[in-house]
This record gives sequence, C-alpha cells and structure tokens, in this order.
Amino acid sequence: MPRAVRERQMLDAAVRSFARHGYQTASMDEIAELAGVSKPLVYLYLNSKEELFTACIRREAEALLAAVAAGVEGRELPPDERLWAGLLAFFTYAAEHPDSWVVLSRQARTQGEPFATEASRMREEIAVYVAGLIGEAAREAHGAATITERDVTALAQALVGSAESLATWANETPGVTAKEAAATLMNFAWAGLGNLMKSERWSPR
Amino acid sequence: MPRAVRERQMLDAAVRSFARHGYQTASMDEIAELAGVSKPLVYLYLNSKEELFTACIRREAEALLAAVAAGVEGRELPPDERLWAGLLAFFTYAAEHPDSWVVLSRQARTQGEPFATEASRMREEIAVYVAGLIGEAAREAHGAATITERDVTALAQALVGSAESLATWANETPGVTAKEAAATLMNFAWAGLGNLMKSERWSPR
Repeated sequence: MPRAVRERQMLDAAVRSFARHGYQTASMDEIAELAGVSKPLVYLYLNSKEELFTACIRREAEALLAAVAAGVEGRELPPDERLWAGLLAFFTYAAEHPDSWVVLSRQARTQGEPFATEASRMREEIAVYVAGLIGEAAREAHGAATITERDVTALAQALVGSAESLATWANETPGVTAKEAAATLMNFAWAGLGNLMKSERWSPR
Repeated sequence: MPRAVRERQMLDAAVRSFARHGYQTASMDEIAELAGVSKPLVYLYLNSKEELFTACIRREAEALLAAVAAGVEGRELPPDERLWAGLLAFFTYAAEHPDSWVVLSRQARTQGEPFATEASRMREEIAVYVAGLIGEAAREAHGAATITERDVTALAQALVGSAESLATWANETPGVTAKEAAATLMNFAWAGLGNLMKSERWSPR
C-alpha cells in the first residue's frame, strides 16, 4: 500500500481517537489498531504522538477551509447567497465530520502548547478568508465606502466566533441539522436580531 | 489583615501571573511576591496551584457576568438599547480587565482538564443568561410567536461566540476601544450584515 494511503489511514484513526479520548488519554496502540497497522509504523511515519496530533490539526483545518471554499468559489452569487452557501458548507462539514470538529474546536485548544498556537494560526487563516469574502461583498454593495478595512476584520472575527460557537452547540444538540444551524446564523448575521424580532427573516430567493 | 482581603490580593496576583505566563509557567513564588505575602500562606489559603487557578476562573467569570448584569438590569430599556447596554458593559469589562479576559478566554481553555470543563460550565451559565435576555426581547416584540425556544438558545450561542471572538481581537488590536468593538457587534447582531451592506447602521436613539 502506498505511503500516502497508509498515512491517511493513520490520520483518520488518530482524529477519531483524539476526538473521543482527548490528546492525553488517546493511545498510540488504539490508533495503530484502528488504522490497521503496527505501532512502530505509526512512529516511523509520524514520529511522535505530538507530531501526529499537529498533523491532524493541520489536515482537518485545511479540509474545513477547502469545504467552505468549495461551497463559495466558482459561482456568481449575490453577497447574501454567497454567505448562505459558505455557512451551509461549513455547518454541513462540521455535522458530517464531528470528530474533526471536536479536534479543531476543542482538543486543539485545550491541550496546551504547541497545539493551541497551531490551532490559533489555523483559525486566523480562516478569519482572513472570511474577511476577504465580507470585503468583497461590501465592495459590490452600496455600503462599500462606509465599511472600513478594520470593520471588515472585526465583522469577520464576529462571524467566525458565532459560527464556531453554533457548530459546537448544533453538534451537541440532538435533532439540530446543519441546514437549521446555517439558517439560524444566516438570520443572525445577515438579517440581524432587529429584523428577527419583527419576524423579518432572511430567506433564499 | 482579614483573610478575605488577603485572599483577594492573592487572586489578583494570580490572575495577573496566569494571564502573562500561562498556567504551567506561572510560579507560586511570583504570585506570593506580587500579593505581598509568603508562599506558605498562599498554599495555606488556596491549597494548590490547581485550586488557585480554578478559584481565579470562577471569580473572574462571576465578575464578568456581574458587570454585564449591572449594565442591563434595573433599567427599563427597549430590547435594542438593552443589548447595546449589555455589549458595552461586556467589552468595557474585557478592555479594563485584560488579564481577566486572557485567563477566561484563553488560559482556562488551553490548560487541559479540569480547567476546560470549569471554563465551559461558566460559559454555559453566561449563554443561559444571554438566552434569557433574547427570549425576553422576543416576547416583548412582535416576532415572539415565530421565535422558538431552540432559536433563542441558538441565537444566544451565536451572540456569545461572536462577543468572545471580537473581545479577544479588540484587546489584541491597538487602538480599538471597547465602545468601537461593542458598536461593531451591535451592528452585526442587531442590524445584520444585510443592512450594513446598504449602509443602514444601528444607532442609539
């Protein structure tokens, strides 16, 4: 079996193990077993539990960003539909990869260094991407002149924070679908609480 | 000096030390020195570094919640003004107590267990409080019938997540005032991106 395939199997097994037991408790024995390989091979390929965990954080963050980008890019959409497509892609990814979401949103941040720094670097990359989308939308819309670069950065931070928080809640709350979570955030972020209170919801055209 | 006063000095010193060096690196020697007491006295009062850190998380979370409640309660305000008062109180607290905010938003979550669980219990308490405010606002407004309990809980999660994210960004970005951060979030959460794009901002009456 090619090395790349074996490595992927090891990372898949590791994400599952880290999500379920946490970094400290997850064992290299279980990861090797889940991956269907010997423990020495895991060490040969990934060096140490620390490097394995770091590789998981990177791979999962990149996959998440790719999923969101795939939902948004390459289509001509008005700004609200683009946000909706991005949110739907994000919540769908988090719902379909709950272990990945636990590793990124919780394990990576709660296991101390060097993982917290790695996780915050990845999060910053996502915030910059989201700021790009908001800035683009603002330039296309009437309000462009009144929204500064700093506004855009701040709004991206607010949007990323609300999405993280809501994805964790959605994954932990029985019966909440990705679409429902995305719709809640779309209404919060696009229509705003002011309109929601007047029953003026955002809805797709 | 009464025990309560001494304990407060120790906790003040500990919050400062933990925020600056992190839980692992902060030393009981420095904490005792900052508090102006002997190290054995810190152990006598707070038992261990772990218990001292847990006591910091609890005290700081309670102080934050009290600051927000003080901004909101006891005044008859329309829902948007109440949200504005709460956000302003929150960002002001975070800006004026940057060490406290670092301990709550970062250290408490990134130092593993049992602190991560304690931090998430505190956060849940804040989310429940915010959900109460949103639910109350919805009941007073026209939209009450169309906003379910689950919507309210989800919106509270989105709001808390965006506030956390923005407070960290604001504290780390030179020149961003508490009022500016609160105004950004007010516009995001109340007016919504849809209105912002049309230059329709929320503003106090």
